[in-house]
Amino acid sequence: MNAKVNLAEKFALLEGPYKPGIVGRLNDYKLQVVKVKGPFVWHKHDDTDDFFLVIEGKLTIQLGDRNIVLGPGELFVVPRGVEHCPTAEEETLVLLIEPDGTPNTGDAGGELSATPVEL
Amino acid sequence: MNAKVNLAEKFALLEGPYKPGIVGRLNDYKLQVVKVKGPFVWHKHDDTDDFFLVIEGKLTIQLGDRNIVLGPGELFVVPRGVEHCPTAEEETLVLLIEPDGTPNTGDAGGELSATPVEL
Repeated sequence: MNAKVNLAEKFALLEGPYKPGIVGRLNDYKLQVVKVKGPFVWHKHDDTDDFFLVIEGKLTIQLGDRNIVLGPGELFVVPRGVEHCPTAEEETLVLLIEPDGTPNTGDAGGELSATPVEL
Repeated sequence: MNAKVNLAEKFALLEGPYKPGIVGRLNDYKLQVVKVKGPFVWHKHDDTDDFFLVIEGKLTIQLGDRNIVLGPGELFVVPRGVEHCPTAEEETLVLLIEPDGTPNTGDAGGELSATPVEL
């Protein structure tokens, strides 16, 4: 059976910003940790919502018409089909939940596309 | 579109232990906050895993053969079909994620069964 997950320990294993790691699964969803620093890429996921919970730092999720600013203990679900671009001035630690196989860059692709490692 | 969720603000709205509140949705999953104090009830969910993330306090998830003890920033996914019983000595704040419609007491039913309120 799976073990408990200490998020701080998992964040320490990440190689750098936007290199996500899978820390567990909930049915067919992947539980991921990711460090955010600097702007990501504008993208959307047509088939799924996208869950962000900030563990440490400050995350800005740019949407087309407004910004969502999250501190520790704050979460936001980007609805499917909505263009968004995460960014952070300082390194920020985020728990991400989305269906297994969801590409991190959604429909955008590009150099920030990354296959999550299993942590 | 949905708004950001500050978990501390949502926990403050709960009526008491084991009275869960829904703070958002991720596709067909409900995002719930719940206060845990004292023993819950032994139960299982045959159709779904069950996600627990401790935000504040200390949660013990009793399993048949061992206990999982979680502090803030620690999570555990109870696999489907596995009997478990959450408990906490002091009031503990937990983020729970499971498919919409999943009963809190699983197959056990009983007096702790509760329909989550929408927060």
